[in-house]
Amino acid sequence: MTETLTPTPRSRARRLFEKSTQERAAVDAILDAMPVCHVGYILDGAPIVTPTFQWREGDRVYWHGSSASRLMRQAADSEVCLTVTLIDGLVLARSGLEHSVSYRSVMLFGRAETVTEPAAKERHLERFMEHILPGRWAALRPVNAQELKATAILSMPILEGSAKISAGMPTDLEADLSWPVWAGIIPIQLVVGAPEPDPRNLPGLETPAHATAYRIGDPA
Amino acid sequence: MTETLTPTPRSRARRLFEKSTQERAAVDAILDAMPVCHVGYILDGAPIVTPTFQWREGDRVYWHGSSASRLMRQAADSEVCLTVTLIDGLVLARSGLEHSVSYRSVMLFGRAETVTEPAAKERHLERFMEHILPGRWAALRPVNAQELKATAILSMPILEGSAKISAGMPTDLEADLSWPVWAGIIPIQLVVGAPEPDPRNLPGLETPAHATAYRIGDPA
Repeated sequence: MTETLTPTPRSRARRLFEKSTQERAAVDAILDAMPVCHVGYILDGAPIVTPTFQWREGDRVYWHGSSASRLMRQAADSEVCLTVTLIDGLVLARSGLEHSVSYRSVMLFGRAETVTEPAAKERHLERFMEHILPGRWAALRPVNAQELKATAILSMPILEGSAKISAGMPTDLEADLSWPVWAGIIPIQLVVGAPEPDPRNLPGLETPAHATAYRIGDPA
Repeated sequence: MTETLTPTPRSRARRLFEKSTQERAAVDAILDAMPVCHVGYILDGAPIVTPTFQWREGDRVYWHGSSASRLMRQAADSEVCLTVTLIDGLVLARSGLEHSVSYRSVMLFGRAETVTEPAAKERHLERFMEHILPGRWAALRPVNAQELKATAILSMPILEGSAKISAGMPTDLEADLSWPVWAGIIPIQLVVGAPEPDPRNLPGLETPAHATAYRIGDPA
């Protein structure tokens, strides 16, 4: 069963989100559960898709990269598409074409805006880290002006796009249910292992809670 | 440590692969380990990034979708970017800006070509399933002409792009190593759970080996 939260065949993926709806809540939940995203740009007339981390602040989504990157510089004020995907399982059906994937996905469209002011950049980076590793930012060697300059931050409003959630057993044709082949779901999940300390850590440093408690993907 | 298999800052990601090199072997290994990909197209002048499954056959990569999708139809003979990303861990450093991600990623550029001949489409779909779930195709209700017609298959040669692998402990500045904060790696891995049978399965059907043995992401 595919629950398309917006009526979005791929070609109609662009649609305005209404605030405070079930759909917008699903968008936020997926963005918050999965920092890994793929951002699509147009560079020299061709599409380019780069993996990066995103974080949400209210009604905006942010991502960062190197200020030295031509891609990050050219992305300012240009159209982008940011997609977040969580794979929850393979769905095995009785016919090849009914095989599918359990997944949660968000596609966002908009124009990328650059955060330029250094204090604002630092604040956004702190929120990014606090979202992923709560309490860590304050323990770090403070960021300096040169590091902020070397970091480009882009953002866009969560305004237009789609959220899709697919879950549940295969939807074979009634006539195929008697075909003698096992059908079902193979669950897939992102699992976090035990933190591995850097051998150069100072003696006596305990593994912090944000490392031992880290989770990604919010298992469905 | 980021091992850039090609000298590719993001803006120079387009580069021809040489066959039978270490780099090309890394590309193949990542494509074969991780079927989930994100394909970027240009639709109505803007980028669009959709998640789908890819599979490799020799020197080409394939992906499929619905023939009814405007995106799939318009993608024929147009420029695309196909990106595969595996996240292996978070890398926690002593300064915010040295935080990074352990990952393996491939970015491919090229023109999408459509597979049109029904017998060829069936052969490619069989190879796709044999790659993911060996032995399953022959056990399924055979595919019919209408299903083949409803399935669009695109492909492109593995010719141009980049592979990047990042692994290892954080690369903090020497002066930061004395900062009293825990540094290290939080490992992340895709884990497959026990297959869940469809309650409508015929009595006596055993869970097949391709379901119990399924693995994704080829843990590093």
